[in-house]
Amino acid sequence: MRVAEAEALALATHVLEEHGAPPDHAALQARVLVTAEMKGHPSHGLYRLPLLVERIERGVVDPQSKGTQRWRADAVLEVEGSAGFGPVVAQTGIERLAPHIPDLGIGLVTVRNANHLGMLAHYVETISAMGFVGIALSSSEALVHPYGGTRAMLGTNPIAIGVPTAADPLVLDLATSIVPMGRIHHYAATGRSIPEGWARDAAGNPTTDPRRAKAGAIAPFGDAKGYGLGLAIELLVAALAGSALAPDVHGTLDSQSPCNQGDVFILIEPSLAPGLAARLSAYLAAVRASPSEIAGEPVLVPGDRARQRRAAARRNGFEIDQCLWEDLNALSSSRILAFEGQGS
Amino acid sequence: MRVAEAEALALATHVLEEHGAPPDHAALQARVLVTAEMKGHPSHGLYRLPLLVERIERGVVDPQSKGTQRWRADAVLEVEGSAGFGPVVAQTGIERLAPHIPDLGIGLVTVRNANHLGMLAHYVETISAMGFVGIALSSSEALVHPYGGTRAMLGTNPIAIGVPTAADPLVLDLATSIVPMGRIHHYAATGRSIPEGWARDAAGNPTTDPRRAKAGAIAPFGDAKGYGLGLAIELLVAALAGSALAPDVHGTLDSQSPCNQGDVFILIEPSLAPGLAARLSAYLAAVRASPSEIAGEPVLVPGDRARQRRAAARRNGFEIDQCLWEDLNALSSSRILAFEGQGS
Repeated sequence: MRVAEAEALALATHVLEEHGAPPDHAALQARVLVTAEMKGHPSHGLYRLPLLVERIERGVVDPQSKGTQRWRADAVLEVEGSAGFGPVVAQTGIERLAPHIPDLGIGLVTVRNANHLGMLAHYVETISAMGFVGIALSSSEALVHPYGGTRAMLGTNPIAIGVPTAADPLVLDLATSIVPMGRIHHYAATGRSIPEGWARDAAGNPTTDPRRAKAGAIAPFGDAKGYGLGLAIELLVAALAGSALAPDVHGTLDSQSPCNQGDVFILIEPSLAPGLAARLSAYLAAVRASPSEIAGEPVLVPGDRARQRRAAARRNGFEIDQCLWEDLNALSSSRILAFEGQGS
Repeated sequence: MRVAEAEALALATHVLEEHGAPPDHAALQARVLVTAEMKGHPSHGLYRLPLLVERIERGVVDPQSKGTQRWRADAVLEVEGSAGFGPVVAQTGIERLAPHIPDLGIGLVTVRNANHLGMLAHYVETISAMGFVGIALSSSEALVHPYGGTRAMLGTNPIAIGVPTAADPLVLDLATSIVPMGRIHHYAATGRSIPEGWARDAAGNPTTDPRRAKAGAIAPFGDAKGYGLGLAIELLVAALAGSALAPDVHGTLDSQSPCNQGDVFILIEPSLAPGLAARLSAYLAAVRASPSEIAGEPVLVPGDRARQRRAAARRNGFEIDQCLWEDLNALSSSRILAFEGQGS
């Protein structure tokens, strides 16, 4: 079925408010989940809301927490997340650091013990909109095996980079696993085999059975290089945030553990070289206009497709699984019935 | 033939001093080139020395320059490279910023218009040895085509990350191309075909002919994700250093153009969480000890193999092409004849 952005935001916000979130915390957490849906990444979307509610009910998420901030150094804001919503804790930290960036030139927010951030793109888009370059890194449960290894030892360890230009910012957001674990779950739910090379089972053997893969490990993207990047992010996040390493991380996928992963945000003022922002957007336009491998499929710049999907979803709403929508309504005392277009 | 580290350092230093480099500049530039040889990366090694000498003779490298530094913000040191040796300009900037990192927590050095850095690993190793996390990014000539594209639009845009631990630091150093351009040159020199998927010719068609690939474009590593990372590094470096974008970059491969690419170094003080450094090294040990895909080939951590090779080269010397060694001697007035072992 199809729902409108405003409906989805209203329902998700309402559910969170009814479970103890202040209106601004509920609105931000809802916005991050709904934006992922609109960008075509349901693995980071509303299906996480019932889990979040369950975590609030079990007391491992505190919907009122903004985290506790302290300046670890002149340009480093260290945040103890205190079980708050990931987006609320991160946004509060970024907004505290941002006014200092014109003087400092560069600054860092480290977060530990907050909940799942959702898509990292959101944060670097926020930072880019402030006029700064943004880098976001995050750690997770052990889900990825090393290149040449067979056991899950690394998180999916995403990195996002946002660079403002004279037009749209460049927005890169990638997990260092070959696919997100959500994709494996989706294959399992729809009874399809996964391609060879994606995953190993709990015994370390290659598998095309997504149910076995869920208990095993996903491959890193890009062979040795992608593994190296994922491992470097694993260490960077732990070294900067003081957070747990993948084998000891809990609480991003389960309903009962406090979340002890880490997040890192770097904000940087761009060079003041004359005409720079226009040079950056002209370069991206030249990349898009460069010859493509397949006629009719133009070269894309990271973030282009998500931006197109979000714009279309703003106009036309977006598809959501009817059962999920019913589940979300069941979490709310006031059912939102004003579906826009119907059909499945 | 095989040469000893000390011989290679002495010869390279001598050649550079004879071409106008102060002793400390010559020693550092020589060290960076020889270390690449010892780590098994001759594409960043001594074969670049004759080119460097030619560039000095043509006046596009100034061996005396350390670059000109100014504080663009409290935590950002902006360096105009003024045609200096890449390693000298970078090292001078890093050493100027480093004493401020304990107070600042994080700081940035941007460099433009310096010459080729050589392997980025050197810089993050230097930063790690100071006790800081290091991130290094660099741009280059357009050599890499976009994912889904056919024309060289991006640099090979390497990233290096160094994280100190209680044992060896993690040292990641990767180009975002599927192979270095030096590897393509090596295939061409030895008359072998390159594997499918590595490169396209000047017309944008896939090729396995390394000579055609040299005039064309290399593929990004890791498909869309590796391309995205490379493009983000392209924009990051230009946005922070104010340097040229790949299609306008010159001077890292040719002998006549001033070098106008950019480099970025981020130094960060790790978290002071108790026992953190030991946790990081214990985690890396667990990754190395985790089950491997192929019996007898243990899982590696980025930097392990280079460290092993360098240690072996310290003991036993390293192989170098006899013609190259002769060429290097020909650049020096005092021929270094004390070859260690002979043979080719």
